[in-house]
Amino acid sequence: MCGYNPARVKGFRAERELVRKFWEKGFAAIRAPASGSKVKHAIYPDVVAIYKGKIFIFEVKARRKLSTIYISEKQVEKLKEFARRAYAEPYIALKIQELKRWFFISLSKLKRVGSKYRIDLEVIKDALTFEKFVESVKSVTLAQYIRSDG
Amino acid sequence: MCGYNPARVKGFRAERELVRKFWEKGFAAIRAPASGSKVKHAIYPDVVAIYKGKIFIFEVKARRKLSTIYISEKQVEKLKEFARRAYAEPYIALKIQELKRWFFISLSKLKRVGSKYRIDLEVIKDALTFEKFVESVKSVTLAQYIRSDG
Repeated sequence: MCGYNPARVKGFRAERELVRKFWEKGFAAIRAPASGSKVKHAIYPDVVAIYKGKIFIFEVKARRKLSTIYISEKQVEKLKEFARRAYAEPYIALKIQELKRWFFISLSKLKRVGSKYRIDLEVIKDALTFEKFVESVKSVTLAQYIRSDG
Repeated sequence: MCGYNPARVKGFRAERELVRKFWEKGFAAIRAPASGSKVKHAIYPDVVAIYKGKIFIFEVKARRKLSTIYISEKQVEKLKEFARRAYAEPYIALKIQELKRWFFISLSKLKRVGSKYRIDLEVIKDALTFEKFVESVKSVTLAQYIRSDG
């Protein structure tokens, strides 16, 4: 990072933490280049995590405390396009710092409001935690995963 | 990029070019964060490209002209570890600027010499071009790809 931008620093930290957590659970995981770059804006999810052929992509959000989250239409469209090409499952990965906890929200849970998407509080409270997410990934065979994908 | 480092700039350019080329062919592709970072050193390939569930990872090398290439044991081991976790196929992606051409070399073609690996000239000349690589990826069904992988 060249310039200091607190929001970006928070974002980087969350992305790095997520990559490290996935790596510890046996996944291969990679973070995208700095959010500011043009290429990133064009196509990339924030994090890609792969477990034995099963591909997951994430838009990463970090918030201090539990609150409704808004996501731009553009971010959602990019995630969908990458997922379509890769046969990946797209998620919003939300870190709530106060709770020291991650929540994984499927795109199907997003509610459209005008030109944005909203994640309601109840959706976040019902979302998969990191442990549950990893468990669900490991409990599905690759064959099942591919069938459910196609 | 903050500091100016010609070798790194050359590397970035080649990685970005490769991501763009894959994107044009319908792949989802992502570049790793700047090579200098610690996380990168720990785990990342330079580029990950995915086509409908088929995962390919690349260590990217750029050279002005055709020559024997040496790759460190560490780079090869990292590529193998990521591939093992993801069920990905690992390659060296070599750009020869004078020829304006890419070559894709499977890790099995690397020859061990002491603590390094060498790619001989004949291996490069026999390697898949970008077009042939894409063709071979698209000609294999996902089911075949997974069988050959396991």
